[in-house]
Amino acid sequence: MWTFHRGGRRFETGRAHPSSGRYARGVDDGIASTPEPPYTAVIFTSLRTEGDRDYAATAAAMERLAAREPGFLGLESAREGLGITVSYWRDEAAATAWKGVVEHLAAQDRGRREWYRDYAVRIATVHRAYTLSTSTFGDAGPR
Amino acid sequence: MWTFHRGGRRFETGRAHPSSGRYARGVDDGIASTPEPPYTAVIFTSLRTEGDRDYAATAAAMERLAAREPGFLGLESAREGLGITVSYWRDEAAATAWKGVVEHLAAQDRGRREWYRDYAVRIATVHRAYTLSTSTFGDAGPR
Repeated sequence: MWTFHRGGRRFETGRAHPSSGRYARGVDDGIASTPEPPYTAVIFTSLRTEGDRDYAATAAAMERLAAREPGFLGLESAREGLGITVSYWRDEAAATAWKGVVEHLAAQDRGRREWYRDYAVRIATVHRAYTLSTSTFGDAGPR
Repeated sequence: MWTFHRGGRRFETGRAHPSSGRYARGVDDGIASTPEPPYTAVIFTSLRTEGDRDYAATAAAMERLAAREPGFLGLESAREGLGITVSYWRDEAAATAWKGVVEHLAAQDRGRREWYRDYAVRIATVHRAYTLSTSTFGDAGPR
């Protein structure tokens, strides 16, 4: 797997981090501020096992680590039974490099053995994006 | 926007729906069972306004409606402050057709005006995917 959830941490509000494009822990629990496409999205969907088993702490550490990797653009995460984490990268090479970071490899190993009863990873190229403010009201067609 | 969240509904466990590839309400609150890539992913990330305002009921209705659309492959959704819904489609034409369905247009309009204080929609092409069972243990390289 590539990314981790915030585990038991719960936040009821969120806001986009500053338009610097730099992911900052504690600032970004909201919608990632990503540049114009194209860029890479890694969609990580998972179902947890019971119990924490160091999961929450490791997930937070992995998020901090990912945010320092070259080509990292942002991360969005939510769990409601099903967990979904989407991390955004400059390109697939950047996402792949993060997958191979040694601390991340150790966490991936524990994930497979202990934390997840199932997961799916999908690597995708984002080629179009818009937001509430850039959406055209009433536009039913492709953008 | 393209897709909707389950709102206040909470589920602590989930399971993949049968390998029929057909999304079925009440069966699928887990990881979507998607075919081999390539296919289209619509990543909808949102922050809600306060209060329900028919949101939960409309979201559930829109999910049922989406599941009957041609080219629909599956849907994954979670909200934890931030909401993330990823819907999967055979191709971008199928995703775009869903965006233009009349009932969905009405819901999108209410979403912009009432339900969301911010959202982002990202349209992506999934070109690689794996799961816990198809992941190669210890594989640090690209797959």
